[in-house]
Amino acid sequence: MSDYQAPIKDMLFAMRELAGLEEINQLPAFGEATPDLVEAVLEEASQLAAEVIAPINRIGDEKGTVVEDGGVRVPEEFSAAYRQFTAGGWSGVSMPAEFGGQGLPYLVGLGVEEMIQSACLAWSLCPLLTEGAVRALQEHGDPALQGLLMEKLVSGEWTGTMNLTEPQAGSDLALLRSQAEPDGDGYRVTGQKIYITWGDHDMTDNLVHLVLARLPDAPEGVKGLSLFAVPKYLVGPDGAVGEANAVKVVSIEHKLGIHGSPTCVLAFEGAFGYLVGGPHEGLACMFTMMNHARLSVGLEGVSISERAYQLALAYAKDRVQGRVHGVEGAVTIIHHPDVRRMLLHMKACIEGMRALVYVAGGHLDMAHNHPDPAAREREHTRVALLTPIVKGWCTEMSQQLTSIGLQVHGGMGYVEEAGAAQHFRDARITTIYEGTTGIQAGDLIGRKILRDRGAALTSLIADIAASDAELAAHGERLAVIRQALAASRADIAGAAEWLAGNVSGDASVPGAVSFNFLMLSGTLLAGWYLAQSAAIASERLAAGADDRSFYEAKIVTARFYAEQMLPLTGAYRKAIQAGGDSIMALSEEQF
Amino acid sequence: MSDYQAPIKDMLFAMRELAGLEEINQLPAFGEATPDLVEAVLEEASQLAAEVIAPINRIGDEKGTVVEDGGVRVPEEFSAAYRQFTAGGWSGVSMPAEFGGQGLPYLVGLGVEEMIQSACLAWSLCPLLTEGAVRALQEHGDPALQGLLMEKLVSGEWTGTMNLTEPQAGSDLALLRSQAEPDGDGYRVTGQKIYITWGDHDMTDNLVHLVLARLPDAPEGVKGLSLFAVPKYLVGPDGAVGEANAVKVVSIEHKLGIHGSPTCVLAFEGAFGYLVGGPHEGLACMFTMMNHARLSVGLEGVSISERAYQLALAYAKDRVQGRVHGVEGAVTIIHHPDVRRMLLHMKACIEGMRALVYVAGGHLDMAHNHPDPAAREREHTRVALLTPIVKGWCTEMSQQLTSIGLQVHGGMGYVEEAGAAQHFRDARITTIYEGTTGIQAGDLIGRKILRDRGAALTSLIADIAASDAELAAHGERLAVIRQALAASRADIAGAAEWLAGNVSGDASVPGAVSFNFLMLSGTLLAGWYLAQSAAIASERLAAGADDRSFYEAKIVTARFYAEQMLPLTGAYRKAIQAGGDSIMALSEEQF
Repeated sequence: MSDYQAPIKDMLFAMRELAGLEEINQLPAFGEATPDLVEAVLEEASQLAAEVIAPINRIGDEKGTVVEDGGVRVPEEFSAAYRQFTAGGWSGVSMPAEFGGQGLPYLVGLGVEEMIQSACLAWSLCPLLTEGAVRALQEHGDPALQGLLMEKLVSGEWTGTMNLTEPQAGSDLALLRSQAEPDGDGYRVTGQKIYITWGDHDMTDNLVHLVLARLPDAPEGVKGLSLFAVPKYLVGPDGAVGEANAVKVVSIEHKLGIHGSPTCVLAFEGAFGYLVGGPHEGLACMFTMMNHARLSVGLEGVSISERAYQLALAYAKDRVQGRVHGVEGAVTIIHHPDVRRMLLHMKACIEGMRALVYVAGGHLDMAHNHPDPAAREREHTRVALLTPIVKGWCTEMSQQLTSIGLQVHGGMGYVEEAGAAQHFRDARITTIYEGTTGIQAGDLIGRKILRDRGAALTSLIADIAASDAELAAHGERLAVIRQALAASRADIAGAAEWLAGNVSGDASVPGAVSFNFLMLSGTLLAGWYLAQSAAIASERLAAGADDRSFYEAKIVTARFYAEQMLPLTGAYRKAIQAGGDSIMALSEEQF
Repeated sequence: MSDYQAPIKDMLFAMRELAGLEEINQLPAFGEATPDLVEAVLEEASQLAAEVIAPINRIGDEKGTVVEDGGVRVPEEFSAAYRQFTAGGWSGVSMPAEFGGQGLPYLVGLGVEEMIQSACLAWSLCPLLTEGAVRALQEHGDPALQGLLMEKLVSGEWTGTMNLTEPQAGSDLALLRSQAEPDGDGYRVTGQKIYITWGDHDMTDNLVHLVLARLPDAPEGVKGLSLFAVPKYLVGPDGAVGEANAVKVVSIEHKLGIHGSPTCVLAFEGAFGYLVGGPHEGLACMFTMMNHARLSVGLEGVSISERAYQLALAYAKDRVQGRVHGVEGAVTIIHHPDVRRMLLHMKACIEGMRALVYVAGGHLDMAHNHPDPAAREREHTRVALLTPIVKGWCTEMSQQLTSIGLQVHGGMGYVEEAGAAQHFRDARITTIYEGTTGIQAGDLIGRKILRDRGAALTSLIADIAASDAELAAHGERLAVIRQALAASRADIAGAAEWLAGNVSGDASVPGAVSFNFLMLSGTLLAGWYLAQSAAIASERLAAGADDRSFYEAKIVTARFYAEQMLPLTGAYRKAIQAGGDSIMALSEEQF
């Protein structure tokens, strides 16, 4: 038996009850994605994850990747798993059917992606980057370029990469210096890119690098960036792989975790590339990739935490140590209240995080596919608001949760053989890549809250308020949850009001309060979804549903979260309302 | 210049203004430890730390340790540093003068220890364990045994180890199975011990293992444990090192961090040993070692966080990225409010944690050396209450702080070469060894709060309340701090009252609330010490002190902590007052 079992029941609960799967399935774009089909897809994917991908996780961590003869070599087990993955059509689950994908809702793709990420985070990054490239080409590429590249990428025959960062330009893309010169029907791209995830490997015959660079007449700053598709090997008009392009692997990084994922320094030395989108429209193209990737990385926070939870839970059910009141002899450590607290903390947060990501995914399906333009706009606004919270909060939580998973193991957790340490190391990248937590928090405050004067946030708070009557209907059973949620809702409303009243006088305020605002938002939203889950569970129990154990656990889990997590919103609110004075008061020398 | 500079100014501030160094210096036991001498000792130690020990930190991480020819080999650089350490007499800074130590206050020893730990945590564990062995032998060994071993250990010519854990017995020492049989004027010890820090190495000619084992007639459980001193090489009556004892290095662990510290599995195969203390009194002897070691590990939380802070701060002052309002062009990232927030969070927490450890150290000096028995008893009660908070809270905080240190580096933080990842990995052991956070929390609630019906805690809360008038005297300047501290004091009082009223009816309550009680206590105490620091700083500024920059920073730092950290006590209190119902509600299958 694999040491990873996909939590399909909770995934389906979140998709159906919270993220609107049934409504999405009825959209014209997904006429054939019946609920039964979704369940079958998830079941099949869970086998792939457990039997093919989960076993390579440790191997990738221990073997790592190497540069040989100018290219990156990954463990053979990785290539073997990749062959099974593409042979099963898994690369294209939610990718466009016109290019050979399965065309299922993005939401369903998230479920498959969660399993793959839980099974092996390092490996899962390769398909993730490919999917980002597909979405950028689909939205911004011209038909000729799509014809040349899309089918190969959708099938996974080739993989994609995302080339943004340069040594002097990480979070600040305005500082990018890579150049592109027109040459015949294409361009010659020159520059050095760093932190290129799966920037080279030997799993496929070709790779397509999407590269941000500047055309000769480009304006300064981010408005002068253009996006280029640069294949590793040149591609003939018939799609055949030809000679090597002028892209060199300079080195790979020696990292804390995700050792199985090669993080490359790439040198583009007049490499031939195709323009994606218009000149100087690179930023918009990049945001298409990035917004997708940010939801995926938020999901990584869920996935790696779920894997860590399963490992800690198995250990807690097996390890005998200590005694408890009312039980004869030594007990397994899951009997100890403090160990149960740790496990329940993981479980409750993970279920809340999963709901948050899936709900965002559901909104994205609606934003892309709803027949009513006004509904699309509304859904787009909501997913834009949720995206930095998904990315920022879920990955921040994954630091805490994988650390608790290690802690449950005691001394064994610190020994690499136990596996808990790998999850802890692997998780650590998630708050950094695809925009650090600080970048997400800045996006939330600046672009998503202040720019529309809080309209999107106000609408979200109103939706949360609308749950109150529903919770009230369940009386005492959900009273603790209802009360805690109302208090947290008042916290976000109060914080938002304070922000509106204090932002104009002090330029440091948005940056000073952004992290706490992001944490407040994520903590509250997960609590809201868990509260809704508890209400649904309570209804099902009242209606005599079969699976009483699952629904009872949902209520307990939501109550635990309301007791232990939701009170944090009060602390975040106070920190926000303290503003930026203390933060800005010290000189550099006083630090 | 070294990349570590000891924060001597803040250390001395905490020792003098908060931990009572002057009063301790005037105790008969320390008549010669004048303030000037203390400062000179710290200055000299800081050079050793920066120039000799800090440079070996990365080397130990990269080279690690190996088992060769039945023994552990450590990097030669570690041995060279150890020779300089012992040659300078640093091994015995606060160890008894009668056995060749410098006999300085424990508090001063803590200052030296912090520097050594910051410089290289893995290496520092060797002297730490030796000091634990010295204290156990000093308190419980008979004069003959002391005569045989003490001078060698105090000088560091030999090192000491602590052998508690066995595969089936980690947190629960009742499960220990190692045996000891009388043999002539000694004993023969048999059993396997795991997680033995610095359990073997080639830095010295001999080691002394302190080993818990059972005599033939021993009662079951922890009351049947005896402590034995088992040298690696047999010791002649003249102290000469003789033949190898029957102790084998079975293996060393492959760990997440502290790679330079060999963590051994040792097999005692009828090894000759000396009884320390009386038969079946091993637990008391062990607690002598452990209480000392717990303060030291709490200090490790401070030390590793301080090193991580210095690295992050240097990076933030150097790395150019992004723009801020009011400054032309790209800026170093310390200009960004969210980066300043991270750095100030580290700084404020570290200063609060340092104060907590040093205050506990000061109480320990008083508890051991005050001429008045009633005062000794009072001081002992206070340090017993603080010890689990020092160990549990400071190490939990170090997880968060070293993680923030890495985060400040962005992508570079995830690359091992930057060094931030090593601090993050090294810190991760501190919440586990010397008793996990769960064990500390259980000790706090059970032995330190419930056993005396809250008397020690009530006395501490009264002391905190007594600060209020002092803070009030500074008016508006400290009003934010005063208000936050009062709210947090109400939180701990409320939580304690709830605990007293709810503990008798439900056996799960202590374990269910213990972690949150520990976190509440630590958060509050650090805030209290920072508030006192701010009041002192405010006085000095009013009196026209020279070092205005330092004192102004103290006030800002305390205010930041009051704004951002103290509000957490409200959340901890709510979690405590939720009790154990949710935590105990799920069956094993429902997790």
